[in-house]
Amino acid sequence: MMTLDRETLDRRLAALVAATAKAGLDAAAIVPGSNFQYLTGGRFAAMERPTILIVTASGERRAVLPAFEVMTWEKLGFAAEVFPWKDSEGYDRATAAAVAGLSVKRLGVEGQRMRVFEEMALLKAIPGVAIVDAHKAISSIRLRKDRHEIRSMREAIALSEAALEKTLQEIRIGVTEREVESELLRNLYAGGAREMAFSPIVLGGAQAAEPHGHAGGYRMRRGDTLLFDFGAAHDGYNADITRTVFVGEPEDDARAFYETVREANLIGRDSVRPGMTAAAVDDAVQRYLEASPFAASIVHKTGHGLGLDVHEPPQVMRGDETVLEPGMVITIEPGLYVPRLRGVRIEDDVLVTEGGAESLTRFPRELRVVG
Amino acid sequence: MMTLDRETLDRRLAALVAATAKAGLDAAAIVPGSNFQYLTGGRFAAMERPTILIVTASGERRAVLPAFEVMTWEKLGFAAEVFPWKDSEGYDRATAAAVAGLSVKRLGVEGQRMRVFEEMALLKAIPGVAIVDAHKAISSIRLRKDRHEIRSMREAIALSEAALEKTLQEIRIGVTEREVESELLRNLYAGGAREMAFSPIVLGGAQAAEPHGHAGGYRMRRGDTLLFDFGAAHDGYNADITRTVFVGEPEDDARAFYETVREANLIGRDSVRPGMTAAAVDDAVQRYLEASPFAASIVHKTGHGLGLDVHEPPQVMRGDETVLEPGMVITIEPGLYVPRLRGVRIEDDVLVTEGGAESLTRFPRELRVVG
Repeated sequence: MMTLDRETLDRRLAALVAATAKAGLDAAAIVPGSNFQYLTGGRFAAMERPTILIVTASGERRAVLPAFEVMTWEKLGFAAEVFPWKDSEGYDRATAAAVAGLSVKRLGVEGQRMRVFEEMALLKAIPGVAIVDAHKAISSIRLRKDRHEIRSMREAIALSEAALEKTLQEIRIGVTEREVESELLRNLYAGGAREMAFSPIVLGGAQAAEPHGHAGGYRMRRGDTLLFDFGAAHDGYNADITRTVFVGEPEDDARAFYETVREANLIGRDSVRPGMTAAAVDDAVQRYLEASPFAASIVHKTGHGLGLDVHEPPQVMRGDETVLEPGMVITIEPGLYVPRLRGVRIEDDVLVTEGGAESLTRFPRELRVVG
Repeated sequence: MMTLDRETLDRRLAALVAATAKAGLDAAAIVPGSNFQYLTGGRFAAMERPTILIVTASGERRAVLPAFEVMTWEKLGFAAEVFPWKDSEGYDRATAAAVAGLSVKRLGVEGQRMRVFEEMALLKAIPGVAIVDAHKAISSIRLRKDRHEIRSMREAIALSEAALEKTLQEIRIGVTEREVESELLRNLYAGGAREMAFSPIVLGGAQAAEPHGHAGGYRMRRGDTLLFDFGAAHDGYNADITRTVFVGEPEDDARAFYETVREANLIGRDSVRPGMTAAAVDDAVQRYLEASPFAASIVHKTGHGLGLDVHEPPQVMRGDETVLEPGMVITIEPGLYVPRLRGVRIEDDVLVTEGGAESLTRFPRELRVVG
């Protein structure tokens, strides 16, 4: 939980109301997660208990809450009419009471967050309502980070980079991926981290050819790549950094492979500036990779927005015509992968500034040999 | 990712097919999470990329996967026809191809897991299909844990209890909740934990009156309660343990409050046996609490199922008439809360056995004074 000041609460709520009206919705229904936290400061574990904030296009606010969360809710200072429900009675009555008299015909929800059973509770409470996936419109209020948010992200990144440096110094040939992962986690928590953005990805040798693989018993051999994709979170704000190092001196072809990704990362970071679209950043990166000798090894887009969600709008990919504005934070994470041989990815978290861009992640990208 | 042996894969798939047919569904659509892992061994981070496994009541299997996950998928050894999709082309075509020719009229989904945008992709791919919340039916295949699962849970619990003991020994009057939380996390990861069941809950003094509150800057004072609700996870299997200790000697009324919860916890654990319903266990606990001097301080049910999900069926509450069977694991976690004064909860993870029950959590429950 974060306590947001009155001005912040008001500004963010106004942004949601405006986005809801602009999207032609009568109301938005927000469930615990990034948008919920952004609007209220509250971080609730919803699990099997519906927790739904309803905000209409005219600014009315109703909250359906498990009864035992009401005290936590009240501390947030978010003004809303509260409809608590107890385990023993279920949530149907509270949900129906919350929407009574609101006259909602088109209800926007976070498609990538709200689950089917919460949607069904709303459909039951508002017969005939049209549920619209307004994930992008609702999340759009979080696109431009304010300085408090940037500060949290810098903190998460600082914790992450310090732990990575410490971990790299401890790597020896013969160590397993899982041992490296444990060491990284220990260093993160010893350094003051309290939560992770996601379970760290630590992949050695051919394993790194799977972008989202899992650490296993593979033992590092001389010349192997070792890929780290991880991040701490701070107050809910995520770091997301990838670095790929070599355990012992690499072969020449592996060096060329690495340097191609490094150049693509640099081109991506250099291309970021206000007024450019997210798709154009992706294009710059992809054009370079496609013209390289490793074009066949491209498997994913350039990046994604980063903030309270690890993946959030905009997508740095073909088709996302979001115009970059100061305050947006995106990842630049080109990668190349050869199945059953190797994978390299280098990922930075880049803040769009008035004058161009600043990489919040500063960890060196030069080819590094450890072990 | 866990690699499941052929016999386990076959047995679990057969259970899903049977549950799907029994629920009158033509197929079930499973998204990454506990059921997906249980069936395939795979742990995928779905985020904005739909990853959907479709299993029909006649046993046909289709998988819609982000292209870059295909290699990871293939290692699992789960036989299915795969429909990969790339970021650059989107997922509509792959989803439509996956369901082509299946003739699905009633499609069961995990209501507490599947998100609205995944549901919408299915609705688009199968025009006119009826989406049914089959969360309970689908998850029912995981109710009875096998010995591999129990072993993972014991491991998660052992890591958790060792870290708790170490943390309790370090507590002093004046320490903040957040410092205690950090210490607990450090001890968990130093002890070998690789993931948490959920962000630990560490609440001191009056804060503990909020069942799902968050650690803050509150400093422990003499006589305060200090509540820990946390758990490590091992191979995806969760521990979930709550203990409440006193920092310095408590007052008599606080002692009586604590002992009432301890007795309720004991009554709950003692009542668990095969053939009893989950609701009857809750009844035994609630009857005792309701007859106590602290009846007004009851705010939640007795517990929930535990396994690959932190909260899963059965619910140990009124209305859940699930008959307990050997292999089920439920939490027994009575609590009492006085707003702005104190909260006490004692939670154990209890395995239903042939002869009765065994508490997998063994951490002492006697009133303990630390600091």
